[in-house]
Amino acid sequence: MMLITRRADFSSSHFYWSDRLSPEENARVFGKCANRNGHGHNYTLEVTVRGEIDPVTGFVLDLKELKEILRREVVDAYDHRHLNLELPEFRHTVPTTENIAIAIWGRLRERIPGASLHRVRVYETPDLFADYYGEA
Amino acid sequence: MMLITRRADFSSSHFYWSDRLSPEENARVFGKCANRNGHGHNYTLEVTVRGEIDPVTGFVLDLKELKEILRREVVDAYDHRHLNLELPEFRHTVPTTENIAIAIWGRLRERIPGASLHRVRVYETPDLFADYYGEA
Amino acid sequence: MMLITRRADFSSSHFYWSDRLSPEENARVFGKCANRNGHGHNYTLEVTVRGEIDPVTGFVLDLKELKEILRREVVDAYDHRHLNLELPEFRHTVPTTENIAIAIWGRLRERIPGASLHRVRVYETPDLFADYYGEA
Amino acid sequence: MMLITRRADFSSSHFYWSDRLSPEENARVFGKCANRNGHGHNYTLEVTVRGEIDPVTGFVLDLKELKEILRREVVDAYDHRHLNLELPEFRHTVPTTENIAIAIWGRLRERIPGASLHRVRVYETPDLFADYYGEA
Amino acid sequence: MMLITRRADFSSSHFYWSDRLSPEENARVFGKCANRNGHGHNYTLEVTVRGEIDPVTGFVLDLKELKEILRREVVDAYDHRHLNLELPEFRHTVPTTENIAIAIWGRLRERIPGASLHRVRVYETPDLFADYYGEA
Amino acid sequence: MMLITRRADFSSSHFYWSDRLSPEENARVFGKCANRNGHGHNYTLEVTVRGEIDPVTGFVLDLKELKEILRREVVDAYDHRHLNLELPEFRHTVPTTENIAIAIWGRLRERIPGASLHRVRVYETPDLFADYYGEA
Repeated sequence: MMLITRRADFSSSHFYWSDRLSPEENARVFGKCANRNGHGHNYTLEVTVRGEIDPVTGFVLDLKELKEILRREVVDAYDHRHLNLELPEFRHTVPTTENIAIAIWGRLRERIPGASLHRVRVYETPDLFADYYGEA
Repeated sequence: MMLITRRADFSSSHFYWSDRLSPEENARVFGKCANRNGHGHNYTLEVTVRGEIDPVTGFVLDLKELKEILRREVVDAYDHRHLNLELPEFRHTVPTTENIAIAIWGRLRERIPGASLHRVRVYETPDLFADYYGEA
Repeated sequence: MMLITRRADFSSSHFYWSDRLSPEENARVFGKCANRNGHGHNYTLEVTVRGEIDPVTGFVLDLKELKEILRREVVDAYDHRHLNLELPEFRHTVPTTENIAIAIWGRLRERIPGASLHRVRVYETPDLFADYYGEA
Repeated sequence: MMLITRRADFSSSHFYWSDRLSPEENARVFGKCANRNGHGHNYTLEVTVRGEIDPVTGFVLDLKELKEILRREVVDAYDHRHLNLELPEFRHTVPTTENIAIAIWGRLRERIPGASLHRVRVYETPDLFADYYGEA
Repeated sequence: MMLITRRADFSSSHFYWSDRLSPEENARVFGKCANRNGHGHNYTLEVTVRGEIDPVTGFVLDLKELKEILRREVVDAYDHRHLNLELPEFRHTVPTTENIAIAIWGRLRERIPGASLHRVRVYETPDLFADYYGEA
Repeated sequence: MMLITRRADFSSSHFYWSDRLSPEENARVFGKCANRNGHGHNYTLEVTVRGEIDPVTGFVLDLKELKEILRREVVDAYDHRHLNLELPEFRHTVPTTENIAIAIWGRLRERIPGASLHRVRVYETPDLFADYYGEA
C-alpha cells in the first residue's frame, strides 16, 4: 500500500456555539471557545491519498494537481474566513476540529482523480488534531 | 550580555481595516485581511529580557515568574479574543503584527522585575514575524 | 472512524539498567544510557482517542477534560521526576520509550470518559518515538 | 502492538524524467522537476519497525543498532548524491518520493534483526511525504 | 526599531568546487560536497526589513508585496535550479550558505520599497544557517 | 558582517540547588526544579561565529571542523550526563540555562580557528532559551 500526503494551511476564525444548548450550557461546555466575537487559528491540513504507482511517472497522482485541488476546494474557501458565518457546512454544525475534518472530507472525496482519499487530518494547533477516515 | 527568552501562545481573531481609508482603499491595501467577519491565527510570542545573573540562583530572573507575567498581562487578555473588538489598544489601531508587538511591549515594559525588556517578537504564522525593541 | 489527538510534554530523567544483567552486560547493551547518574529528555506525549462525534457539541470528547486528564494522570506524575527512582512502574522495568508508552497506556486506559484509548505515542526526541496500541 | 520509529536525514539531488515519455511529455507531466540539471531536497526518512519487547532490555530492538543500519544502508548511499546518476535503483525508475520509499524498503527489509519492517516514510519537504508498507 | 521578517523556501542543487584549487584540494576542503554530480537542499530564506510603521495601515511595508518580491527576485530564480550551473552569481563563486546569503542580499537590496533591508538569513538545513547584514 | 550558526543537541540531567540557600529557600526559589533526584532535557545548542569569507572556499570557517569542535568540546562532555554531578563547571554553580550558555562559551572561546565566537544560544525546551555574547 502506498500513501501520499500533502499539507496545506489556512487561517480562519470560529467560535463554538450550539443552538440546541442554552447560553449557560454553551458557556459551560465550550468555555472560552463560546466567545461569540470569535477567535482563530492557523489550521494545518494533511490530506492522504492511496493508490497504485504509475510505472511510467512514478506517481500515485500528480502532486501539482493535488495541490491545486486543495487550494481550490479548501484553502480558497476557508482561508481568511469566519467558518461559522461564511461556510454553509457550519451554519448548523459547530466547527470543531472533528467537524472541520468531516467537512473537508466531503469537499474532497469525489475530486481526487485516479486515487482514493484515505485520511483527512486537521491540526487546530500543533498540540491538537483530528483524523477522519470516512464512514465505514 | 545575557538575554533570556520565553515563548507563549495565544489564538485570536482580527481583521485589517482603517477608518481613515475608504472601503475601496481598505480592500485594495489589505486584500483578504479586510474581511470584516474576521479571520484568526495561532500567534506565538517570544519575550526577551536582559539582565545580570544572580550569582546565587544563576537566574537573570525567575522564569516561573516571567511565565506568570506573560499569562496575566498578555495571554489572558488576548487568547480566544477578537483583537479589534475586545482589546482597547486596537480600537483605533490596526492589529497588524507590528502593532501587536508594540502593544505587548507596552503591556510588559514596566512589569519585568529586576531585568529589562529587550525585545518582543510576535509570529503571526511561522513564516511571518515582527521584532520590536522599544522606542529609541 | 474519528480519532482525536492531544499532545503534552514532560521533562524527566532516566537511565537504562537491568538487574538481570551484569554490569558489563548493562554497559554493552545500553551504552551511554547506562550511566547511573541519569540523563534526561523533553518527552512529548501524543494521546489518540477514538469515538463517535456528539451531534450537539461536535466533540468526540471534551478536549479541556482530556487535557486535564493528561495533566493529572501523566504530567504531574512524570514531569521534573527521575523515572527510575520515583515512579513505581519503573522500579523493576527499564524506562525505555517502549515501556513508557505502555505505562502511560495503563495510566489512561480506564480514564477516558465516553471514548476509547486508541494509541499512545511517546517521543524521546524528535527523531525517536514509540507507538503503543494496547494488547491484542 | 508496539512500533518504534527512528528518523534519519539525507540531502540529495534528483530530477524527474522518463525515457518512455517524449521531451514534451516530460515537461508537461513533471513541470519544473524535469530540469535535467537537477534540483535537491533535505529528505527526512522515518523507519518504523514492529516487534515484541524484550522483557530484560525493554527494547523492541537496539536503537543504536537501528541507527547504524539506517546509516549504512541508506544515508551513506543517498546523502550528498545525485539519485538519478549515482543510485542503481533509479537508473530506470523516476526517483519520486513514492519510489524512494519503495527503494528504501527494499534496502532495509531483510536487515532488521529480530523485528519486522512496518513502514517507510519519506518526506521530500515538510509538506509532502509518502508512506510505504510493503507489498500486500 | 521595528523589524519585520518573511520566510520563503526553495529547493536547489549545488556542489562545492573552486577552480583555484586542485582536484585533490577540492576533495580535501569540501569533502562529500565536492561531488560534481551535485546534491541538494530545501533552503529556507528569512528576509528582515527595517522601517517606520505607517500610522494609517499599521505596516512597515505591505507584506503581500514583500512576498511577491521574494518570489520574483529569488524563488523563481533559484527554486528547482542547479545553483552552480544556472545562476550567473555562482559561475565563479562557490554557492556556500554564506555566498547564497550575499547573493540574495544583492538581488533584494534595491527592491524593498519604503523600508531598508536589514538581514538575509539562509538555512541550508535546520541545523546550519548564515546571516548577512550587508557591507559595513 | 557575516555570521554562521550551527546547531547541536545533547540530552542531560540536572537539578537546581544552591548551597548558599537553605532547603526551604531552595524549594521556594526553584520549585520542582529543586528535586535532587534530577530531571532532564533535550538541550539544543546554537553556536554563532563571525568572520570574513575566504574568497577561495566561500567559507567563514570549515563547518565540518566546527561540527567536530562542538562534538568534542561540548556534546561528548554533556550528552547523557548529569550536569551537577559530572561536570566540573557546575560543581558550585547552578546549571541554569544562563549558566550552561556561559560554560559553553568558556569551552569554545579559544577554539574557533580563524573566526570569532559571536553568540552561544542554549534552548532548554523550544519555549525557553538563553543567549550569551561574552563579557563586555
